[in-house]
Amino acid sequence: MIIQLSEQITATQRETIISCVLKLGYKPNDVTTQKGRYIVGIGKKEFDIRMLGSMPGIVDIHRVSDDYKFVSNKWKVNRTVIDLGDGVLIGDGSLAIMAGPCSIENEKQIEDTINHLKENGVGIMRGGVFKPRSSPYAFRGLGIDGLKLWYSLARKAGIKIVSEVMQVSQIEEMVDYVDIFQVGARNTQNFNLLDELGKVDKPVMIKRGISGTIDELLSSAEYVFSAGNEKLMLCERGIRTYERASRNTFDINAIPILKEKTHLPIIADPSHGVGIREYVEPVALAAAVAGADGIIYETHQKPEEAFSDGQQTLDFAESARMIQKLNKVRQLLTSY
Amino acid sequence: MIIQLSEQITATQRETIISCVLKLGYKPNDVTTQKGRYIVGIGKKEFDIRMLGSMPGIVDIHRVSDDYKFVSNKWKVNRTVIDLGDGVLIGDGSLAIMAGPCSIENEKQIEDTINHLKENGVGIMRGGVFKPRSSPYAFRGLGIDGLKLWYSLARKAGIKIVSEVMQVSQIEEMVDYVDIFQVGARNTQNFNLLDELGKVDKPVMIKRGISGTIDELLSSAEYVFSAGNEKLMLCERGIRTYERASRNTFDINAIPILKEKTHLPIIADPSHGVGIREYVEPVALAAAVAGADGIIYETHQKPEEAFSDGQQTLDFAESARMIQKLNKVRQLLTSY
Amino acid sequence: MIIQLSEQITATQRETIISCVLKLGYKPNDVTTQKGRYIVGIGKKEFDIRMLGSMPGIVDIHRVSDDYKFVSNKWKVNRTVIDLGDGVLIGDGSLAIMAGPCSIENEKQIEDTINHLKENGVGIMRGGVFKPRSSPYAFRGLGIDGLKLWYSLARKAGIKIVSEVMQVSQIEEMVDYVDIFQVGARNTQNFNLLDELGKVDKPVMIKRGISGTIDELLSSAEYVFSAGNEKLMLCERGIRTYERASRNTFDINAIPILKEKTHLPIIADPSHGVGIREYVEPVALAAAVAGADGIIYETHQKPEEAFSDGQQTLDFAESARMIQKLNKVRQLLTSY
Amino acid sequence: MIIQLSEQITATQRETIISCVLKLGYKPNDVTTQKGRYIVGIGKKEFDIRMLGSMPGIVDIHRVSDDYKFVSNKWKVNRTVIDLGDGVLIGDGSLAIMAGPCSIENEKQIEDTINHLKENGVGIMRGGVFKPRSSPYAFRGLGIDGLKLWYSLARKAGIKIVSEVMQVSQIEEMVDYVDIFQVGARNTQNFNLLDELGKVDKPVMIKRGISGTIDELLSSAEYVFSAGNEKLMLCERGIRTYERASRNTFDINAIPILKEKTHLPIIADPSHGVGIREYVEPVALAAAVAGADGIIYETHQKPEEAFSDGQQTLDFAESARMIQKLNKVRQLLTSY
Repeated sequence: MIIQLSEQITATQRETIISCVLKLGYKPNDVTTQKGRYIVGIGKKEFDIRMLGSMPGIVDIHRVSDDYKFVSNKWKVNRTVIDLGDGVLIGDGSLAIMAGPCSIENEKQIEDTINHLKENGVGIMRGGVFKPRSSPYAFRGLGIDGLKLWYSLARKAGIKIVSEVMQVSQIEEMVDYVDIFQVGARNTQNFNLLDELGKVDKPVMIKRGISGTIDELLSSAEYVFSAGNEKLMLCERGIRTYERASRNTFDINAIPILKEKTHLPIIADPSHGVGIREYVEPVALAAAVAGADGIIYETHQKPEEAFSDGQQTLDFAESARMIQKLNKVRQLLTSY
Repeated sequence: MIIQLSEQITATQRETIISCVLKLGYKPNDVTTQKGRYIVGIGKKEFDIRMLGSMPGIVDIHRVSDDYKFVSNKWKVNRTVIDLGDGVLIGDGSLAIMAGPCSIENEKQIEDTINHLKENGVGIMRGGVFKPRSSPYAFRGLGIDGLKLWYSLARKAGIKIVSEVMQVSQIEEMVDYVDIFQVGARNTQNFNLLDELGKVDKPVMIKRGISGTIDELLSSAEYVFSAGNEKLMLCERGIRTYERASRNTFDINAIPILKEKTHLPIIADPSHGVGIREYVEPVALAAAVAGADGIIYETHQKPEEAFSDGQQTLDFAESARMIQKLNKVRQLLTSY
Repeated sequence: MIIQLSEQITATQRETIISCVLKLGYKPNDVTTQKGRYIVGIGKKEFDIRMLGSMPGIVDIHRVSDDYKFVSNKWKVNRTVIDLGDGVLIGDGSLAIMAGPCSIENEKQIEDTINHLKENGVGIMRGGVFKPRSSPYAFRGLGIDGLKLWYSLARKAGIKIVSEVMQVSQIEEMVDYVDIFQVGARNTQNFNLLDELGKVDKPVMIKRGISGTIDELLSSAEYVFSAGNEKLMLCERGIRTYERASRNTFDINAIPILKEKTHLPIIADPSHGVGIREYVEPVALAAAVAGADGIIYETHQKPEEAFSDGQQTLDFAESARMIQKLNKVRQLLTSY
Repeated sequence: MIIQLSEQITATQRETIISCVLKLGYKPNDVTTQKGRYIVGIGKKEFDIRMLGSMPGIVDIHRVSDDYKFVSNKWKVNRTVIDLGDGVLIGDGSLAIMAGPCSIENEKQIEDTINHLKENGVGIMRGGVFKPRSSPYAFRGLGIDGLKLWYSLARKAGIKIVSEVMQVSQIEEMVDYVDIFQVGARNTQNFNLLDELGKVDKPVMIKRGISGTIDELLSSAEYVFSAGNEKLMLCERGIRTYERASRNTFDINAIPILKEKTHLPIIADPSHGVGIREYVEPVALAAAVAGADGIIYETHQKPEEAFSDGQQTLDFAESARMIQKLNKVRQLLTSY
């Protein structure tokens, strides 16, 4: 159960509610987010919701049978909208586009990308400064200095930033220079990282694990929410299967399934989802038509010279063409 | 290598060609289809294609490095179009729709479905009369009598029939009563069945194996083609993965990948691909926008009373709505 | 429910039983095997087993909640023993060894293999004469003539034969020349083939599907049993996963799980299970210690010259060494 | 390439070596571990190893074509032995046994477990104090205080401790109270954690990722080694597949494959590998016979009352019986 508390609740009222929750056989957990105060009760027993509903200090109460609670749309029917400021919204019915290189490389590359995004009406730039790499000897990104440089150029241009945070200690370093913290596929179940991201007032996008289930992704989001941060979105980026003709298998089913299970915005990453440049566009269009709230993909001035992921990176001409098509698909969706 | 022979080729010319192929270190295989006569040479050695190209009796010759030859678009650039007669075409740029129940049940059900298809401009009806079932005690279909009944009603209405053939002995029984033989996901690598379907002049649609790779699907098609039947199409129907939130994982990547690897029409089956009624529509739309040449799905007057697969079957209202949306997506694709 | 009928049952008694089964809400299926007559009732309702138990004509009755019935050890606690004659037994507590080439190639190869088996006390020879191959252009086996040659040499030497049957029409051709029909991994759910093998009085070994579940394997066995053939064994041969360091992932868990779910003998195929020559021995030993009733593996006089599967085939020295170790492991199991 | 440097190397000699490495087109990385100083050169060009081999300051040099270098047995043929003190060794040819509960719960439980281990000659106790849990509302372990309590009891009894570290900040907290840091399956690619564990002089056991490949596991080990810690072992604990009859699919193939690819000790975790209590023993025996250097499993005084993982936890009687059988298997291996 999720009990939303009144802002004016007294300590005594709170205690009375908690002891009632305990009496019902539920374990109460305090949750305070940017948007409200809650008690989430964990348990499985049947109870009469009216017993709690009328108690002073309670604004609202919902039964949620899913393993995850706050991110379930059994609790919240209205879809979550993430407002990045300057009119950049995610989950409001528009199709959010986030594009940029796999790795941030240098000033010239950042500027080229920003110009490309501006020309095509894209408001959010992706890019990695801390790169998770299978091999310890591979390029691990420009680090915090790269992020600061990127930030100064992006802010001037009015472009928002999404970038991956790999560990707890990076949160504080990065927080003033990103608009969205990305949790990568290898960290979907890095629970300490999720806990700490719950304490920050900054949007978080969680990628599905490399072979993560849909339910695990939702439970990971529950970590962040229950630690205090409601500004959340989820990203389908392909799963690991036996098929070798593509890098991953983009799970198109996950788009409508997630849209039905949660009120959070659902983003699709076709670049990692298929992993081969020439197939990124059809997969992106498919995700959009299946209901994704946004598309995140890799683009680079010269993909063949990119520090990483060149084989799945669009050049700017391909990127521009794809944006045009995505916009047409979005129009179609609103015209049905 | 694939050598297309002239219709007027003499026996001597043929022998000369074969001995030349052998000399190049290639194993020659004779192939005669409805559309032509070929020698396909299997081997890996380098050779000068001009050595063969100028020999009398040869119309055309191509080097094909893929493991499959005839179904590769390294051999044939023009996409294959399947003509079912009465203006029903597959692979011509239109979106072919094939709809109907999982199992053919009775006359009333057939008539209801035919009416639904006619009202919505659908030219091909799917349905099973021989049903592969995991349990020997489950309903195995109405058999050949069910097919004959269905055929008589469908022909009157001008509706084409696609139905699954499970074993060699059924081919002859069924051949006069189907327009497309479907090879099911459990028979994708039933090589004897594929061989025999190669000897029939009737279109064949091969479903991808339950955990079949894209390359295995193409090799299965090569079986049918090299045994004499060029009227082939392939069907993506979801693969088996660890994810349990859907019945299968529809491999959206496979649509553009197959379109690039082969000239054969690619059909998508969202019903099996996701396996849950409410998600069939978004997956179908995704497949269409990703480039599928056709959509095959399950619909039933009363899905909750269907003999099989009710949980993934659309009712007629849902089906009609989906057809409308599919048509809009198709229009969009031609408008880019 | 499974009702074992008396041999002396009268037609009236049988009808009375059937109508009682129907009244309980169960669908009765007649089953006659080499070993008995049964009615298997399919349904889910609760019933008092004593209502049926005391009826004339009934020898025994069991409730079986699994989806498969006859192959469940909820029905039959005593483990099935397959007797191939001449003292060659499978499932009697000894470790059955079946070894030989992937493909039968010629007389010399057969003789070499037979000699190797005789020298090492192995009673069963494996080999393919009908080969399922992904590509239509690959070697498909020597066919029935190869089998007859093999049979004449093996019989003289007192060696039993296990060989794959790929389609219904081959059953009659092969039946006099094999001791065990093998159903390959691509045919585990070829239900027509399973049905027909149920009508033959010859042992059948069913391999697990390429990505088949344990339950599907048991249901496939149920097909053969319920069609009349109790002489059945199952074979774990590795499943398809994302891991590329081995050809398949041998599912060692499946050995004890199958042993607990069914009374049928469980055979392990380490050659396909790992697919790399140097790892066949440790996987075979692992399967034996985990409880397998038999091991089937590929061996060849000169693996590097084998027509197929050479990379996973042991030479005779490796094979002899492995047999010795397997025998020691078997001794260990009886010594605990 | 891996260049082992002399302890007496001068700065000038080092610079000369590095510039030579650079000239060969290789990127040099400095590595200092507890056991030596190295330069690992990353690159793919051919070179004459003698050009470097004779330079002053070099003890030894190896070409290593694998993506991982230090953990490859192309570099180091002698198997790594981990010495925990008091005669407790891992990788020396004996079978190391690590047993204990999923979660450390209280003093009584710790004492019971220690007594059980002592009685059965087991030198290492497993247990979690920081528990990674999919749901934020589940029990997350007793934390550092639980570890300290456990440590004081274990030290008295001469029992070594292996316990999971979930994040960088826990390393310092835990380092004085554990004998082996365990990296869990959800952290196999938590590269920051791996880097930091490389700076500690304490053995590390890395579990294979939930759907991690064998190569990824080796690359994760390379992180720890190249950051300075050679005291490493790897653990196969089952992978995620489509099969639902077991919790995971224990990859028995991985045991001999890892033993061939790396010199590090290989541990098997049958508890997570199959996830069902009654099948833990056969899987453990299988892993031992396939070559594992150690077995880690869950045991509890009363599995049905365990805070977590009770369904896969052996009681003490089962545990004792399994230890006896494991010892017999180990004897067998040395008797071949």
